[in-house]
Amino acid sequence: MGGKDLTRIAISIDKKLMDRFDGFTAEKGYTNRSEAIRDLIRDALVGREWEEDQEVVGTITLVYNHHTRELSDTLNDLQHHFYHAIISNLHVHLDEHNCLEVMVVRGKASVVKRIADRMIGTKGVVHGKLSMATTGKELV
Amino acid sequence: MGGKDLTRIAISIDKKLMDRFDGFTAEKGYTNRSEAIRDLIRDALVGREWEEDQEVVGTITLVYNHHTRELSDTLNDLQHHFYHAIISNLHVHLDEHNCLEVMVVRGKASVVKRIADRMIGTKGVVHGKLSMATTGKELV
Amino acid sequence: MGGKDLTRIAISIDKKLMDRFDGFTAEKGYTNRSEAIRDLIRDALVGREWEEDQEVVGTITLVYNHHTRELSDTLNDLQHHFYHAIISNLHVHLDEHNCLEVMVVRGKASVVKRIADRMIGTKGVVHGKLSMATTGKELV
Amino acid sequence: MGGKDLTRIAISIDKKLMDRFDGFTAEKGYTNRSEAIRDLIRDALVGREWEEDQEVVGTITLVYNHHTRELSDTLNDLQHHFYHAIISNLHVHLDEHNCLEVMVVRGKASVVKRIADRMIGTKGVVHGKLSMATTGKELV
Repeated sequence: MGGKDLTRIAISIDKKLMDRFDGFTAEKGYTNRSEAIRDLIRDALVGREWEEDQEVVGTITLVYNHHTRELSDTLNDLQHHFYHAIISNLHVHLDEHNCLEVMVVRGKASVVKRIADRMIGTKGVVHGKLSMATTGKELV
Repeated sequence: MGGKDLTRIAISIDKKLMDRFDGFTAEKGYTNRSEAIRDLIRDALVGREWEEDQEVVGTITLVYNHHTRELSDTLNDLQHHFYHAIISNLHVHLDEHNCLEVMVVRGKASVVKRIADRMIGTKGVVHGKLSMATTGKELV
Repeated sequence: MGGKDLTRIAISIDKKLMDRFDGFTAEKGYTNRSEAIRDLIRDALVGREWEEDQEVVGTITLVYNHHTRELSDTLNDLQHHFYHAIISNLHVHLDEHNCLEVMVVRGKASVVKRIADRMIGTKGVVHGKLSMATTGKELV
Repeated sequence: MGGKDLTRIAISIDKKLMDRFDGFTAEKGYTNRSEAIRDLIRDALVGREWEEDQEVVGTITLVYNHHTRELSDTLNDLQHHFYHAIISNLHVHLDEHNCLEVMVVRGKASVVKRIADRMIGTKGVVHGKLSMATTGKELV
């Protein structure tokens, strides 16, 4: 990240609170404290990207039984309908019946949400969730 | 906060990320950056209190129609059953039919969750939510 | 609820799924299955009230140390500034230092969120959360 | 799903509540009401799988800048360390700097959470989230 313009800020914090947070970050596997705080900051900013309907990336996870009549066809049709926004798909065979499919979707937050609603609401999908991620452009 | 043992930590952070977070904190009405970061840290720690089944405080919000037969009695009975944990109640008349009741509950996280389940699951309660707060003891 | 216009709908559902859900509702303390399903439905609808910026009720929970200089004054001033929306307050003394305060706030979803941001962002507030409830008008 | 043992249950529900829910399901793109209600039921059950530390599937989404020194190596090492649980990876190039990686992870809920913590906590990962899904075994 050669061109990064690093700054160093100081925050005042109660020692006891810092000690507890150091315990938290160690438990979470963070190697340093700045990284843990930066992650909290980035999380707050990603939340705002979605609230303000900016360009975002989301991952939609679906679990379904591939024996369900016409389900694969329906999902495939839907995906083609939204092909401009769906970057990529990962398909995992969980067992002889169940599939998990993850779609990476990019677009305005409201569009990504609508696509997720349609996928998750398709008859035969037994579980569906949208995970709100980011293009990373505004984060560093 | 006389006896507080303040420390000052420095974190290195990309300037662009800091600028965006400063925008976020201004929008949220924070008067300074350290306070906003401390809030993110405390949030993470409160989450852990609940995960580790420590002593916590929660607020349970219920909305219900007070005309529902025997509902007030049932809720009252339940509250007395858990009287050792329920610190206090606030009752608001939303309109001629609907009441909102907020209970402040203190105890082990698992106990507070069980009380919330019972209240929210009572027939006639049209909305119920548990908000996970803290005794504040471990925070500063 | 004399005037209620009850209807009876049938849903087809796999027996195994229903059995598992019956286990879930028993554990949550529900006395009947219809009530548990109605609660899931109402939850989904309350989420939509907030998304569509309708008139809502929210409860804001704050935890703070009342020794913090000028904090009580600041919160009080803020509450007066938003007096038109804040219906009621409950104040609990958690210990010799910590207070918990629950405010019941009513208004457009965006206004209630803004009030929550301001309260939670006030310096000295160690924990703050908004719980999204409902006026109950649209639910039954 | 040939062998499914379908049952038909009736729930009594206020007509106005049902009408509003029908609006909700239409908006979400559901083709029928039973499917929408079954989805609410399954969601509640998936939540319980994670709470009870059952065998689950989760998807971990990471966004990071692939120029970050040694990050790809570190993530790769971590993934090999947990190879028994990580079923599959999807890697998307968001732009010339940013990558999005989705991992499908299977195991006890506590193990999947620990793996997610480690991945998300790795220095250089700018965004990370765990989406709690299911093996689908217990759902239908």
